[in-house]
Parts: sequence; structure tokens; C-alpha cells
Amino acid sequence: MEETFEPFRGIKNDLRGRLMCYKQDWSSGFNAGIRILAPTTYIFFASAIPVISFGEQLERNTGELNYNLKSRHVVCCNLIHVTYLCLHVSADGVLTAVQTLASTALCGIIHSIIGGQPLLILGVAEPTVLMYTFMFNFAKDRADLGRNMFLAWTGWVCVWTAFLLFLLAILGACSIINRFTRLAGELFGLLIAMLFMQQAIKGLVDEFRIPKREDLRDVALMPSWRFANGMFALVLSFGLLLTALRSRKARSWRYGTGWLRGFIADYGVPLMVLVWTGVSYMPAGGVPRGIPRRLLSPNPWSPGAYQNWTVIKDMLNVPFLYILGAFIPATMIAVLYYFDHSVASQLAQQQEFNLRKPPSFHYDLLLLGFLTLLCGLIGIPPSNGVIPQSPMHTKSLATLKHQLLRNRLVATARQSMSQNSSLSQLYGSMQDAYRQMQTPLIYQEQSARGLKELKDSTVQLASSMGSMDAPVDDSVFDIDKEIDDLLPVEVKEQRVSNLLQAMMVAGCVAAMPLLKKIPTSVLWGYFAFMAIESLPGNQFWERILLLFTAPSRRYKVLEDYHATFVESVPFKAITAFTLFQTAYLLVCFGITWIPIAGVLFPLMIMLLVPVRQYILPKLFKGAHLTDLDAAEYEESPAITFNLPTEVDMGRGYSFAETREVLDEIVTRSRGEIKHMNSPKVTSSGGTPATDVRGHSSPRLSEKAYSPRVGEPRPERSPRVGGRRAFSPRIGEIKPSKLGEGALNSPMK
Amino acid sequence: MEETFEPFRGIKNDLRGRLMCYKQDWSSGFNAGIRILAPTTYIFFASAIPVISFGEQLERNTGELNYNLKSRHVVCCNLIHVTYLCLHVSADGVLTAVQTLASTALCGIIHSIIGGQPLLILGVAEPTVLMYTFMFNFAKDRADLGRNMFLAWTGWVCVWTAFLLFLLAILGACSIINRFTRLAGELFGLLIAMLFMQQAIKGLVDEFRIPKREDLRDVALMPSWRFANGMFALVLSFGLLLTALRSRKARSWRYGTGWLRGFIADYGVPLMVLVWTGVSYMPAGGVPRGIPRRLLSPNPWSPGAYQNWTVIKDMLNVPFLYILGAFIPATMIAVLYYFDHSVASQLAQQQEFNLRKPPSFHYDLLLLGFLTLLCGLIGIPPSNGVIPQSPMHTKSLATLKHQLLRNRLVATARQSMSQNSSLSQLYGSMQDAYRQMQTPLIYQEQSARGLKELKDSTVQLASSMGSMDAPVDDSVFDIDKEIDDLLPVEVKEQRVSNLLQAMMVAGCVAAMPLLKKIPTSVLWGYFAFMAIESLPGNQFWERILLLFTAPSRRYKVLEDYHATFVESVPFKAITAFTLFQTAYLLVCFGITWIPIAGVLFPLMIMLLVPVRQYILPKLFKGAHLTDLDAAEYEESPAITFNLPTEVDMGRGYSFAETREVLDEIVTRSRGEIKHMNSPKVTSSGGTPATDVRGHSSPRLSEKAYSPRVGEPRPERSPRVGGRRAFSPRIGEIKPSKLGEGALNSPMK
Repeated sequence: MEETFEPFRGIKNDLRGRLMCYKQDWSSGFNAGIRILAPTTYIFFASAIPVISFGEQLERNTGELNYNLKSRHVVCCNLIHVTYLCLHVSADGVLTAVQTLASTALCGIIHSIIGGQPLLILGVAEPTVLMYTFMFNFAKDRADLGRNMFLAWTGWVCVWTAFLLFLLAILGACSIINRFTRLAGELFGLLIAMLFMQQAIKGLVDEFRIPKREDLRDVALMPSWRFANGMFALVLSFGLLLTALRSRKARSWRYGTGWLRGFIADYGVPLMVLVWTGVSYMPAGGVPRGIPRRLLSPNPWSPGAYQNWTVIKDMLNVPFLYILGAFIPATMIAVLYYFDHSVASQLAQQQEFNLRKPPSFHYDLLLLGFLTLLCGLIGIPPSNGVIPQSPMHTKSLATLKHQLLRNRLVATARQSMSQNSSLSQLYGSMQDAYRQMQTPLIYQEQSARGLKELKDSTVQLASSMGSMDAPVDDSVFDIDKEIDDLLPVEVKEQRVSNLLQAMMVAGCVAAMPLLKKIPTSVLWGYFAFMAIESLPGNQFWERILLLFTAPSRRYKVLEDYHATFVESVPFKAITAFTLFQTAYLLVCFGITWIPIAGVLFPLMIMLLVPVRQYILPKLFKGAHLTDLDAAEYEESPAITFNLPTEVDMGRGYSFAETREVLDEIVTRSRGEIKHMNSPKVTSSGGTPATDVRGHSSPRLSEKAYSPRVGEPRPERSPRVGGRRAFSPRIGEIKPSKLGEGALNSPMK
Repeated sequence: MEETFEPFRGIKNDLRGRLMCYKQDWSSGFNAGIRILAPTTYIFFASAIPVISFGEQLERNTGELNYNLKSRHVVCCNLIHVTYLCLHVSADGVLTAVQTLASTALCGIIHSIIGGQPLLILGVAEPTVLMYTFMFNFAKDRADLGRNMFLAWTGWVCVWTAFLLFLLAILGACSIINRFTRLAGELFGLLIAMLFMQQAIKGLVDEFRIPKREDLRDVALMPSWRFANGMFALVLSFGLLLTALRSRKARSWRYGTGWLRGFIADYGVPLMVLVWTGVSYMPAGGVPRGIPRRLLSPNPWSPGAYQNWTVIKDMLNVPFLYILGAFIPATMIAVLYYFDHSVASQLAQQQEFNLRKPPSFHYDLLLLGFLTLLCGLIGIPPSNGVIPQSPMHTKSLATLKHQLLRNRLVATARQSMSQNSSLSQLYGSMQDAYRQMQTPLIYQEQSARGLKELKDSTVQLASSMGSMDAPVDDSVFDIDKEIDDLLPVEVKEQRVSNLLQAMMVAGCVAAMPLLKKIPTSVLWGYFAFMAIESLPGNQFWERILLLFTAPSRRYKVLEDYHATFVESVPFKAITAFTLFQTAYLLVCFGITWIPIAGVLFPLMIMLLVPVRQYILPKLFKGAHLTDLDAAEYEESPAITFNLPTEVDMGRGYSFAETREVLDEIVTRSRGEIKHMNSPKVTSSGGTPATDVRGHSSPRLSEKAYSPRVGEPRPERSPRVGGRRAFSPRIGEIKPSKLGEGALNSPMK
């Protein structure tokens, strides 16, 4: 994307691009029918559960403890009745889960309707909670602010934040986002995963302790019951984690009908939350009510849940000095949101997803300013784009699109085969069906994408069976499997799933009494699940794993993750680069532990931009750096390859001559894009529609085409000899421009 | 094996066969060096842990409860000290874990030294425990027997049992073992797995309850601590189960050095028992001593542990009527042992293991008679061959042999490649090295086995690179991977591991105070582990899974398990056969629940012999039955295949002509043996040494060559078109008789 700081230009571009596909955003979503519920529920849980948990955290942090005495009669064991004096606490937080849910729902609904990029998920995030806690601690002790004026003051903070965000959006600050390479984005993603995992572990350890809120003597807090609660929590959280991880892979299970497997893969995670909540009710009789511990959210109809909505009338009562002073936290929040929001959006639009609709960084930042203002005025904490939910959203929509395309193509293929078509006819009719399924964008007449090429092995087999024109049968073309191989990764880009999930979050406010039935330990398991789910596809993580991989098995990394750098960059350079990144990550993680400055850890990550641009090129060879972390601003000059056609390569087997050529292009043999030259030349896997997205796409310079999205079906390339599996794949390395015309003729 | 009932003939045959390789049994074991410890420890744990648990069961069942009062001071929670009057029980069982361990060790040592088949593991098994419990309940209420004369009376039972076993052995009863097809053996194996799993579940549920032994008020038995104990038990047992299962697969892990992975795969299970025992000590402070519950075995130096050894002097004091009456339980035990011992031996010698040394059913049964007599006279419960330990033993020795062969061949290949050998030279030198590693049995000059043939893809690549005589480099021959593919399954047949594990069991008697530190919940996890470990390779189990497999994924069963019946038998017939077998299994399982008659469930399984021979052929087509459950007595007439040589097939690709041939032989394309005709004709994978084993091997008519033994490396045959992966494997389907001579010449 062009780096322009001309006012309003970025916003205008964004609006123009998104308006063109606005109608399609809705129609495409509704076309998907009931299946849209799968990604919706998946993201709803991923969005609501952390927000509820952050709400509880906020309630603890912004509340005061009121002790009231209760007397309880407790059966200690069969023989002895012990009477305890139990203290029961009720903490009235200024902000509770009701407010965080309300903010997430409100911002989510608005963004999904009038926002730019509908793949972006909004929610109240941990940094916001930390900032609000910090501000509460500051305000509560001031005589002229105090607990009662706290929300009014945060209203002013939001006003200032919104002002700063407007400025940033208008002046085109987002155009420097394309300086954020993979390096920064993935580091941030991994940091968020670490924070989620940390929360999961902390939560589990706390299950063995007396909770902060109730430092009193409940039966459930006796050492024996506390120990039992902790052990139960271990069972529930590990149970949830393991079953949820398993259920995501249900589609590739061997057992059960396809329908059941699909259902489990789509709805397994919410289902597992239900199942383990059910399990938590299993121990009956003798087990006190507090075992296991459950969510403690307030009733949304309680008086405390209302205070905030009328905060706007108190705002003018805030002393003028504090109104000015609000500018200081506002800068911090603005920086934070600018970064968080843009990176979340960027990670949701990575190149490997082959998105077709344009991004909208500038306009979305502007809208975020308005949303922050709105939230501030009604006294709820503002929301911003969240990680890992936003990339999770895109991934689940890619799975959906894959399913839809697949069903259509399978039907077409079946029909075609029943009419005794030849392989070329079959492929042709599938191409047609595929084109019909493509989003009919007005401005995109030229880049009609096609299916990937037929596998070389299939073609070879078909030709050896006689000719390409003989009727195809099951032994040549195994529908289910071949079609999975033919389909490129695509995403169902629409607004319906985002709107629906936000409305479901709104429904949560009403369903609070039901939510209270979820054990906290299930929550911790879910946090761990989210942390782990966000790892695959993160190349930084894959490189960390590579360091621990036995040398003889490194080729597996290459095969599974399509990570070409394993071949092109010496292992020492990979190690050095990864160690540098890991050290940087640990520093960032350490910073989050610093009480107040901790929220500014995004600054550390923004510091990576100059580091990447000016320091790293001195430490690493340019080519290696390009392979490990391609930046758009340092594209190497275009080289035109004289690619041999498929037929030359697939037949000849005269390796002695073609060896150099092979060595040069071998890294592309997995249908991926190698940015050795300008991205417009080397597209192969899925055409990245550079015409539309090229001029303004600041997404991560993603190189590895990752087929992991959706159902994991890594094609195991039969390793013929050494580290390189070329011979049986040669058919794939030709650029897609050859098309099907070139495919048929020489086979006969 | 011939069905002869001529007295002593079977025993003589067995002795002759085993004596020929007796010296080699020892030298081969010692040659393996330190690595022999891997299978030894693995089997030691698998052998000792159940025996200890059965010992505890026996102690409970043969003991009386003595209550003694103790006063204990217990901290109930931080505030309240509660004084309990605690009753502590000390149950003095007539038989304890000391006796069961002693029997296992004694019989194991004797059998490993002078026994016939050293792969067979002896131990005190569950049926023995049940029989002894029944006999104790009978004896304790008789005025003229009672608790004190119980062991003397069981001495007589053992005398009679030994007598019956002698008779059976001498008269050649074991020769009907070859009527026990896969059907019966696998059903029995699965039944044992179910019993182990039942024990694991029962044990876990009991962790939540007050244990039978101490129906008294200990702190650890308060409802809260009992609940905590149960939850802790869940964590420990599932932790052990999951980590143990994982660790067995460590060799194929991606991370860690090869040495570490090998170590974890070899010693992971014992290691995990240690780790989780360590974890059970983690909760410190506040947790009472009885949480989690641990083993309760007696000190071997306590006076109670001595009573039994001098039982022989009481034997003449048993009333004459009871001496005669002892014949009744003796018949039951003899039938039980005859069946158990032979089937355990049979399962340890399945055809897929490619054993080279002869079996020894008759002689082993004779020896079992002597061992039973010995045990009876010194008042300990006798041991017999155990499942699943015996097959586990063979599998672990196959892994060991694989490692040893692999190391040698890798070294040879490295050396050969450093000398710039060609592929044919390389293969030749590896063949030589392999032959040198073969057991040099005197009588086996003709059946010198060779390596499997080189993969077609490798040969093809090499030939396309120029010629077979060009120096081989890494890109053609990937040493680590290729050698795994070349090696056939072989077992390190020797006596050392059996002797060592029996001696370690003997050491357990001394180490009893240490064993007491193991939590019972770890034991339950281990039981579940053993049940699950015994499943793979059991074709009955694989067929049950097949019923739940989605039709579109059934080919995976074919690929992974090399289960040819999936192709050759209609699915309906497979379903009917499997449902019949499952129903039979459930009936057998139901019978084990009947209090006394339950021990006779082997009779139900023996009933399968006539069912298989006379009833099943009426319900299923002969060919299907042969494919599902080949019986040696119904061999079909030999057909000579006119197999095309590798070269014709691998090159031509003229499928139109060779299609029928392919269809006929395609089921053999995975290097397996198909018993369409006499087993002497159709050997392909590894020559089954029919000369030595053919005449007398009553092992299961195992058809599927299972490469799962040891490191799981299922070769994923690239599914070219439909259900059949023929083209890239064609090189493998030629019978091994072609040898390397035929391999080299046409390649040049």
C-alpha cells in the first residue's frame, strides 16, 4: 500500500473499496444459509468467554469489599457437625461483566454493519482492563474525583482518545502498517498467546487457593475442599482443553458419519463447554455448593448494573485540571488501540487467506474513534480489534468456504462422471462450477480465478489408462480426495457472522444467570485452548519448534508447514533470527509484568519497525532476511524465469540437464509464492488478485501458502530421495497461467 | 503342526527343536548388550504391577479383619483441631503380594532357564486369584480344614493339577491348539483387555469410596478428603495413561535428539510411573497422609509372610476325603492353565513376528505341571503364561531387534556411500551385513533371509539419474528412511530378557517398602495402559473399529493395518462375522461376572473350536472365512501364480493388459502373505521358515503382515486413483525368491 500522509486520502480509498462490495458482503453471508452458524458460534464463544472473564477481573479491581456475617451449618463428615461462622463477601464493582459484554456487543454490532473490514472482531481486551484498573486506582484516592466521579473522568479520557484516533486516521497513520512485517505481527500474536496461557495457569493455581473476593470461612474453603476444588479444576480444565483440541480435528477422524464429524468439528468447542459444565454438576451429595467454583457475575437487573449509563450528565462536574490531565492516559490508550486494532486487522487478512475484498485500515481506525467516544459517554470500557479472535474468525470462514465449494464441486463431479465424461471434460465442468461460485465483484472481470491444476499423478494415470478422453471412473478420480487437493484456500468474506456473534454477545447480558453455571476451571481450559489454537500458522512458532527438531526430521517441517526457508536459509541464520525474536518476545512479556508501564508493551513491538528496517539488515544477509521475513519495501528486482512447461518436466526425467532449473524453482513445488521478485510475477497457488489488493494491502508479507486452514490435509510429498520431493510434483510447479488448454493436448 | 496324540512325541519334538538353539538363546541375548534392558524393564513393570495388585486382592480375600484402636490428632482446617478416634485395620491375609511375587519370580526364573519358549512370560494371573479366593471361602468354614489347613489343602489341589497337566502334555493335547484360529485367540486377547480395563475403572471409582479394608474414621476418609482423593486419582491415572501412551511413540516424535527419543520410547513407561508417583507427593502441607491412597503390601520381613513356606509338613494332615475332593478344583485349574498357557504362548508367537526358532507347546505344558507342583508344595499360588504380557514381550523384542539391525545397516550404508558405491553395490553390502546379523542356526542353511527389495521409486530414480552404477548420494538414498523400509520384522529370540525380568520381580519382594510409595491410582492408569497397549495388531479389534469407520475412509484401515480382507470380503460379511464375534465376546465377559463358574470362561472360548469348524462354514462363504480367519486345517489347493517380474511391471505401465494380473495379486502389494494357497507357496514378506516351523507350528494363522511392531512407520502408499495403490509399489509384489540377482541385471 502506498505510504501517503495526505489527509483523508486513506479513508477515501478504504470507503471506495468497501462500498463496492458492501451489498455483496450481506448477500454472500445470507447465501451461506444455516452453515454460517458454525463460524458464528465458534467466534461467539471465543469472544464472549474472555470478555466475561475480563469483566470479572474489572469488577474485582474496581470494587470495594463489604463483609457481612453469615452463620452456616455444615456437615463436615458423617459423624460430626461443625458450625462455622462464615463471612460472605459481596463486592460491588463500578464496572462488571455486564458492562464489558455490553461494550463488546455494541461495538461489534456497529462495526459489523458500518465498519470497513468485517473480518475484524471487536471486544474489550486485557490492555483496556489494565488501563481502567490503573485509572481507578488513581481516581479513587483523589478527593475531587473519587469512586463516584471515576466513570465521568474516564468519559473525558475516551473523548481525548477518540480525538487522537481521529487525527491518526485522517493523517493516514495506518499506511505505515506495511512496515510491520511478519516479524512484528507474529511476535505480537505469540505474546497474546503467552498472556492467555499465563491467565490459564494462574487461574488454575488460584483454584487451589482462597479466592481474593472471599477471604472468609466457607465450607468450600476448608483445606480439604479447597484441595478437592483444585483437583476437580485440573480435571475439568484439562478435560475441556484436550477434548476441544480433538474436536476441532473431527473432520479428519476415521470414525462416525461425515455429518457427525462435520458437526463436531463445527460446534465441538461450544459443545465441550456444555459437556464439561455438565460434568461439573455430576458429583452429587456431600459436595458443597461452591465446588467447583463458578462465574460470579452480577445479575444484569441489579441496581449496580445501571449506574454507568447516565454518566454523561456528570462529565461537566469533573474539575478542569482533570479534564486536561485525562489527555495523558488518552495518549497511551490511543497508541495502544492504533496498534492493536491495526495488527488484529492485519492478522485477520494474511496473504495466505487469498482474500479478494480490499482492506480498510484508515476508515476502521476512524470508526474506532467514534466507538470509543460512544463507550466513554455511556460509561462502559471501549472495545477494539482483538487477537487471536480476529484471525480465528478468518480461519473459520475459510473452513466454511471450503465446505461450500467442496459440496458444489463434488455434486458437479458426480453428475459429470455419471454422464461418462472424460477427465478433461470433468475438470472443465468443475472449473465452470467453481467460477460460478466466485464472488461476482463488478470491478474484477479479469482475475477470475481457476481451480488448481489436476495432480500430475492423476493425469499420468489417466493418460496411461488410454487417453484423457476415456470415461473417468473411480479408480482414476477419487472425488472426495481429489477435490480437496484442487481447491485453493478461500474465505467467505461477509458481515453476517460478525453481526450475529455480536448479537449473541448482547444476548449474553440477558443470559447471565445461565452463564453463571459455567465453572471457572472450564474458563481456564478455554483460555489455554485459545492460546494453543492461535499457534498453528504462526511461522515464528514453527521456527521455535524447528530449533528443537532433530536434524534428520527437519524435512517434515518443510513438508507440513510449506516453510521454504528451511531449504533456502542456512540453519545457523534461522537459529540466530529465531533466538533474536524469542529474546525480544521475552522482553515484551517481561514488560507486561511491570505494574503500570506494562500496558505500553505495544510500544516495544512498534520499536521493531526501525529495528527490522535498519539493524537487522546489518546482521543478516538480505536474501535470508527476505526469506525469513519479507518486507514489501525491500522487494528485489523482478527476474523472469524461463519456466519449462509441465510436459517437458513431467515426462523427460532427464535430470542431468534440468537440474539447475529445478534447483532454482524447487522451492515453489508446493504451490506457493516465492517473493524472489515482484509479487506480480510469481503468483502460482491462488492468484492473489494484485490488481485490487496490491496497491493498498498492508498485510503481512506472507510467503508460505498454508493449506492448514480448515481441515488439516497436509499432502505428504513422497520423499523420493533426499530432502527434496520433486519428481512426483513437477506438474504443480508450472505457473497457473498455462491453464487447462496446455493441460490436455500433450496427454493424448 | 501335526495332530498326533502318540504319547511323548510332541514333547520329544519340542525338546529336540529347542535344544538345537539353546546355546544361541543365551549368546544372542548377551550379544545385545545393555540394550536388552529396554524390553526387560518394560516387561518387568507389565509383569510386576498386576501381580502386586492381584496379591493385594488375594490378601483382602484370604484375610480376616483385626481392628485395633488408635487415637490420632488431626488438623482439620486452620482453625479447628479435631480429635478422631481412629480405628486402624490390619488384615492378615494368608496369601499376600509377597507370595504372588515370589511365585512369579520363581516360575519365571525356572521357565526362562529350562523352559521351551523363552518369549512366554509367567505370572500369577487373575483367574488363579479367583480360584484361590473360591477355595479359601470353601475351606475357611470347614471344621476339619479351616484357615490353618487351607494352604495344605491347596497343596493337594496343585498336586492333582500337576498330574492332569502331565497327562495333557504327554498325550499331546497341545496339538489341537492349531484348531484355535485367530478367532479364538483374538477374542481371548480382547477379553483380557476388557478385564484389565474393568479393573482400572473399578479401581478409579473405588478411589471415591471408603476402601473395604478400613471401614473406619480416618481424616483421609472424610467426605471432603475422599472427594479430593478421587479427583487426585483421576488426575494421576489419566496423567499416567496419556503420558505412557505418548512416550511409547517417542521414536517418531519430531523433537529432541534421537538418543533422547529412543530412551523415552524404551523406558518411558517405567519412567512415567516414577514421574506420576513423584507428582503424587507434590501436594504438601495440609494434605493428610492417606491422600492419595498407596499400595498396602506387607513387609516381607513380617512374621505373616513366612507361614506358607513350610506347608508341606501339614499336607499329610489333610483328611483323606478332602485330598480326593481336591481333584474337583484341580480339573478346573488344569483346564484353565492348559488353555491360558497355550494361548499366551500362541499369541507371543504370531506369524507376523517372523519367528525363526521352533515353538514348544507340549514341553512347556509339562514344565508348567512341575512348576504348579512346586508352588503347591511351598504354599504359594502357581503362575502360568500371561496375556497381554507375553505378546508385549515379543513386540518389545521385535523393536529391539529392529534397532540393532538398523544401527548395523546404517553404519554399513554410510561406509559404503563414503566409498562412492553404486546403488547395487550399496544394496549388496547391506544384504551381506544383514546376513551376518542373522542367527546362525545349524539346521537352517537354506532359508537365509534377505532384506526386502529396494523401493521401486528409489530404483526408478536411480536409473533415471543415469545408471545403477553411478555413485549413490543422499538425494537418491536417504539412509535413515530407506533402511526402515528395507528391514523385515524380526524378533530377538533369547532367554536373557525373560530371566532378568523374573529376577527383577524377585527383587521386588525386597523392595516392597519402595513399592508402597506408588499410588493405587497410578496402578489403575497402568491397567488401562496395558489394556490399550494390547489392542493394536488385534484384527478383531480392528474390525470392530471398521464398523464405525465412515465408508469413505475404510481404505485407511486397509493402508494402516494391511488388512486385505477389506478388499476381498464384502462389507456385509465382515459386519456379520464381527458382530457374531462381539456377541460371543460379551457373553464370555458376562460369564466372568458369575461368582464361581466365572473362572471357567476359557471353556466358552474352547467351545469356539467346534463352532468355527462346523457352524461358521455354514454361515459364511469358505473364501471369506479363509480371509477373515484362516485355519490351517482348511487350506485351499495350491495355485501357482505366473508372477511378472518386477521389471516388467515397474516399467511397462501398460495397465490395459496387466489389469487382471494386478487385480489378482494386488492384495499382496504390501509385502504380506496371502494364504490363498498352501503357506509354503505364497511367502513373500519375510520367508516364514516353513521347514522348521511348518510341521509343528500351531500359531495363529496370521495373515496380515503387521509392520506396527516397534516404531510405527506405516508407509503411506500414495493413493493414486481409487482404493488401490498399485503403481508406486509394484516392485514389492514379487516373491522374495527372485533375490537380488534378478534385481540388479535389468537395471543397468
